[in-house]
Amino acid sequence: MSVPELTPSDLQSILKFTVDLARTSGRLILEGSEAIQAASESDVNEKKNSVDLVTEYDVRVEELVKKEIKAQYPAFKFIGEESYAAGSRPALTDEPTFCVDPIDGTTNFVHGFPFVCISLGLIYKRRPVLGVIYNPFLDQLYTGIKGQGSYLTSRSGSPRKLPLSSPKPWTSLSQGLLAVEWGSDRSEKTITSKSNAFGRLAGNPAQGVTGGKMAHSLRSVGSAALNFALVAQGGLDLYWEIGCWAWDVCAGIVIAEEAGGLVTGPHDAFEATVSSDEFGDVTEEILTGRKYLVVRAIAGTQGETGIDAQKRIIKEFYDTVEDVPTN
Amino acid sequence: MSVPELTPSDLQSILKFTVDLARTSGRLILEGSEAIQAASESDVNEKKNSVDLVTEYDVRVEELVKKEIKAQYPAFKFIGEESYAAGSRPALTDEPTFCVDPIDGTTNFVHGFPFVCISLGLIYKRRPVLGVIYNPFLDQLYTGIKGQGSYLTSRSGSPRKLPLSSPKPWTSLSQGLLAVEWGSDRSEKTITSKSNAFGRLAGNPAQGVTGGKMAHSLRSVGSAALNFALVAQGGLDLYWEIGCWAWDVCAGIVIAEEAGGLVTGPHDAFEATVSSDEFGDVTEEILTGRKYLVVRAIAGTQGETGIDAQKRIIKEFYDTVEDVPTN
Repeated sequence: MSVPELTPSDLQSILKFTVDLARTSGRLILEGSEAIQAASESDVNEKKNSVDLVTEYDVRVEELVKKEIKAQYPAFKFIGEESYAAGSRPALTDEPTFCVDPIDGTTNFVHGFPFVCISLGLIYKRRPVLGVIYNPFLDQLYTGIKGQGSYLTSRSGSPRKLPLSSPKPWTSLSQGLLAVEWGSDRSEKTITSKSNAFGRLAGNPAQGVTGGKMAHSLRSVGSAALNFALVAQGGLDLYWEIGCWAWDVCAGIVIAEEAGGLVTGPHDAFEATVSSDEFGDVTEEILTGRKYLVVRAIAGTQGETGIDAQKRIIKEFYDTVEDVPTN
Repeated sequence: MSVPELTPSDLQSILKFTVDLARTSGRLILEGSEAIQAASESDVNEKKNSVDLVTEYDVRVEELVKKEIKAQYPAFKFIGEESYAAGSRPALTDEPTFCVDPIDGTTNFVHGFPFVCISLGLIYKRRPVLGVIYNPFLDQLYTGIKGQGSYLTSRSGSPRKLPLSSPKPWTSLSQGLLAVEWGSDRSEKTITSKSNAFGRLAGNPAQGVTGGKMAHSLRSVGSAALNFALVAQGGLDLYWEIGCWAWDVCAGIVIAEEAGGLVTGPHDAFEATVSSDEFGDVTEEILTGRKYLVVRAIAGTQGETGIDAQKRIIKEFYDTVEDVPTN
């Protein structure tokens, strides 16, 4: 079976469809949020608790998305959080494949913390090529097409090209605002590894923290997709993620890359590719590898290109933190 | 000198003034943000770097606020971040006193991370009685008057009473979304203490984390005022803060309390007051004590009042984390 060719103009048409789908899904997510809050107000012992409702809306949004994609693009494949057996890596093909997290930031969704989004990515020939991330609570829409740039549309405003301002130089981690997450694996091994890593990133080497980097600070907002979007925007300098899935990051990868960001996998993937011409290519192994590092666009300075600066920052980061296992 | 009486109607009038002031300041903060981004685009070696510009706008916003207050309420006193010698606790009087952080979340401000606000509190007879928090980036305005409730106005919408939905029960920390911050003290002692505490809050006791509480998750957005506002809203269950100042929290205290939230100080302040009738009173000692814990409104359940539930959660929290020093 031959793989259909997707031209830049096809991708624009798919983007329009995907943006409409994201906005429609956003309304359903807001409806779900109201249902969750209302349920919490009723008897605490009632059967349908807020966690059931989250699952219900996760499934409903995914069903809506699958149905609309099937109607519009019947030949496209689909990978989604709710359609997948827990713990299995999706296997990719060359076919156009939507890779979707219906509600990214489900813990935030349960609690009414307004960092929640739908993340709709498109994979083609095993690479992410299109991404839409929509946060209906803040009415912020991030979009990107490979080779055609990425944009943020806030509320009723016009799309603004990402990053929102020209890339700045970046001397060292000490100048950075870094996103990290506690994730869902809370075993002793992972938690010790993460809390040590976070402490080293924040700690001051001049005040006794061995290997401390004294980053400007660390942020945790609880949505992988929105962390990628914030790196693309330039509001975060770097985001390190362990343990999430391809559907959490697929759209964000395109949006970040098109904003000049660089995405890589864990320590060994970085080391294996840093000196090759393919460095920065988000391969199937990286996309489905559940460990990600994304760095914003950096302005080149005398004697160093922007990409070399990104490599230097990633190296400094991976020299500071150990690899963390995934469960 | 006798202290002027402030009636509920006086406070409403002061609130109107303060909201206007917050919105005017918000425009200046946005202007500052644009100046910072533009500066970053120019030569990296230029003298006026983004940190200078942040200080400049911090001072400019505070000067604007002081000037407007002086014109409208010449008898009122003023405590503000930029007017204070670093490291000194403000001494309170019974007089009406504005307590202001012109730009809360300065690290976010430098980086363009959209959690930045102005925080305008009013202290009267040594207690916070009015608060306005405005985030111009998300156009979200939080207001509160002691005894008259607190509200969130988003964009062009109408004010919505806080919390945004009826309080829910809360069984244990394991059910909570908790805000913590890495702060500015990065010494070995503080960082070790914090990273251990955070790891215990997140860790699973069934997977080897001694004393682990397996909280739903931890969030860090980098603005004390907005953390208080998010607890008031119900989007966060609890916020623990070490090392910030009265002007960072004064407005947030009123907004959280009026939403049914409970504010206390560090371990010893909690233990000294938990059994007394004064529990929950934010005394001068707590307000200027640089250590805060705020818990959202909790629905009472059979055999337990909402306040007893708040006390129970605070006790569970302080049994889990050690007191952290301030520098």
